[in-house]
Amino acid sequence: MSTGFTIPNRLLLGPGPSNTPASVLAAMSQPTIGHLDPVFINMMDQIKQMLQVTFKTHNRLTMPVSAPGSAGMETCLVNLLEPGDQAIVAVNGVFGKRMVENVVRAGGVPIVVEFEWGRPVDPQRIKEVLNEHPQARLLAFVHAETSTGARSDAETLCCLAHERGVLSVVDMVTSWCGIEVDVDGWKADAVYSGAQKCLSAVPGIAPVTFSEKAADRIRTRTKPVQSWFLDMSLVMAYWAEGGQRAYHHTAPVNTLYAIHEALRLVLDEGLENRWARHKAAHEALVKGMESLGLSFLVEEPYRLPMLNAIKVPEGVNEAVVRNKLLTDYNMEIGAGLGPLQGKIWRIGLMGNNATVECANRAVSALDECLQALK
Amino acid sequence: MSTGFTIPNRLLLGPGPSNTPASVLAAMSQPTIGHLDPVFINMMDQIKQMLQVTFKTHNRLTMPVSAPGSAGMETCLVNLLEPGDQAIVAVNGVFGKRMVENVVRAGGVPIVVEFEWGRPVDPQRIKEVLNEHPQARLLAFVHAETSTGARSDAETLCCLAHERGVLSVVDMVTSWCGIEVDVDGWKADAVYSGAQKCLSAVPGIAPVTFSEKAADRIRTRTKPVQSWFLDMSLVMAYWAEGGQRAYHHTAPVNTLYAIHEALRLVLDEGLENRWARHKAAHEALVKGMESLGLSFLVEEPYRLPMLNAIKVPEGVNEAVVRNKLLTDYNMEIGAGLGPLQGKIWRIGLMGNNATVECANRAVSALDECLQALK
Repeated sequence: MSTGFTIPNRLLLGPGPSNTPASVLAAMSQPTIGHLDPVFINMMDQIKQMLQVTFKTHNRLTMPVSAPGSAGMETCLVNLLEPGDQAIVAVNGVFGKRMVENVVRAGGVPIVVEFEWGRPVDPQRIKEVLNEHPQARLLAFVHAETSTGARSDAETLCCLAHERGVLSVVDMVTSWCGIEVDVDGWKADAVYSGAQKCLSAVPGIAPVTFSEKAADRIRTRTKPVQSWFLDMSLVMAYWAEGGQRAYHHTAPVNTLYAIHEALRLVLDEGLENRWARHKAAHEALVKGMESLGLSFLVEEPYRLPMLNAIKVPEGVNEAVVRNKLLTDYNMEIGAGLGPLQGKIWRIGLMGNNATVECANRAVSALDECLQALK
Repeated sequence: MSTGFTIPNRLLLGPGPSNTPASVLAAMSQPTIGHLDPVFINMMDQIKQMLQVTFKTHNRLTMPVSAPGSAGMETCLVNLLEPGDQAIVAVNGVFGKRMVENVVRAGGVPIVVEFEWGRPVDPQRIKEVLNEHPQARLLAFVHAETSTGARSDAETLCCLAHERGVLSVVDMVTSWCGIEVDVDGWKADAVYSGAQKCLSAVPGIAPVTFSEKAADRIRTRTKPVQSWFLDMSLVMAYWAEGGQRAYHHTAPVNTLYAIHEALRLVLDEGLENRWARHKAAHEALVKGMESLGLSFLVEEPYRLPMLNAIKVPEGVNEAVVRNKLLTDYNMEIGAGLGPLQGKIWRIGLMGNNATVECANRAVSALDECLQALK
């Protein structure tokens, strides 16, 4: 039936995954050991510490969920919401919409605040909605909308929620390790991310962190969390510092080796240096795209460096261009989603790929494709 | 803070993970590619086909859930249950208990049928309970109880459910690829497994398969599945054969490389040969343990070959022995759980480790430890 497979050497300039460094792949292919082995538990402690540093938090409840970023979103929402709880959700792209879907499935009552796709969440509007709904349990929004490339002001939004005693839930899937995040400084209460974007580890893990206030909320629930697998009160016992580890589920041991090594690389580089590298790569891309006469979906002040939404020129079939890039250049870029389908390309310069060289390769390959298809 | 880590070369003879073959580790460390890349999608199709062969099923709805085995359990139960649905759950160990917990969290009404830990589920008793609850939505049980080493008669139990129009949900985490499973032949409706037991891939993936009847049940739900991440109607669109793939979540690309290679090794060996190898290793272990005067928790006809529960002799501290095995022999074996804590050791001979050599190493190491501690 099947006789193995050959993986092409792609340059991954889409919305994630990004290319994984060789040392991360090497770490992951070390021998599997038991999830209760003292050596593994020591590694878990190190992962937790490195997550705290990269999230800029002292939250004790900080850990990698054993599933992709979408499960991280679900973890935050199902642990904090009980049936009937109001949740204000800012929607300015696919992932805000997904948050609404998760709120509904958790039995919550979503208060949806819509913004134009490609625009940031407007703090003034959120302030009004918070005032209109003083009993809301939480405010959820996306820091870096992967579907549009827009950056919202997480600090101001978290602060608005905090002032009103409302919990903030922040999607940092695409921002973490690529631009500044400051969980404690911003007073964010529940944050989730993914491993395959600016961390450049392999996909399949969702780092999460919960403030003391959020942890209290979990402890004082009247009903158990609807998901057994994602119930933080159970997972906590497994990831607890020191003491006896309670078996919850079998951790994805080898994938966590990869996370450990990728986090080590981030700290080795330094967070500020990493953010600066993302910024420099983005600026090279902007310069190049503008030289081709192409423009960005998002206005300059709100652009994410790691996710660049480029408008598809009139008369160009975006899928033909993407396929040509994949086939002729081994280069993956992303398509638009939802209302932006066919209208934008999404070029990721994430983690390992946040370099001026990658930016320039994207510009010249796109230039050649557009010329060839004329 | 952290400067990498060194993984010891353990012999994993606990309840899983088992040791991962070198070619599986090598496959996993190939470069990451995009989850929508045609090369990856082709690999997904091959994985699906190999899952069908190993589960002995033609179920179209067969796929690897992007999370550990416990999430596979939750996937089966939350997709099939709606609030108020009755679910008959046979409990003869930890994993049956966990099923009850999942039923409750899904809003179902569990009808718990308890059996002594170490004994199989009694089909006669289940028949009575099925007759007492004709309106039950499903019957859930564990084929191979990892906490005790007892094998239940899945064929008979599924048949009983089928005759009454009740869906069967079967935990095959530990049995799959180690003893016969025959999903179509037994008319099992929803089955989940794990990758790190008799498949000897890395932990983090839960293969699942749903019969047409189970798929119909999902399609005719009145309320959406409470979990967005585990909603099969959404995941289906991503794993659908041919046609357009809908983006649902970022698949754990590298882990799926490992699954692909591990499945290829199973088919290369042949299912029957693999089962025979597990049986031979178990028989060597039985012979060796009996020569040491040690006895098994489970009666002979119900013993699983891949999970051997050995009674701890009077006056022996089981944890001291396990720690000595780990420290002095680099050998992991498992402890008892729940009411069996302190009373049994669990010796796994799973997948790659189902060999007479591993069985003999376990016997002689245990012998030496017990002698040394006298």
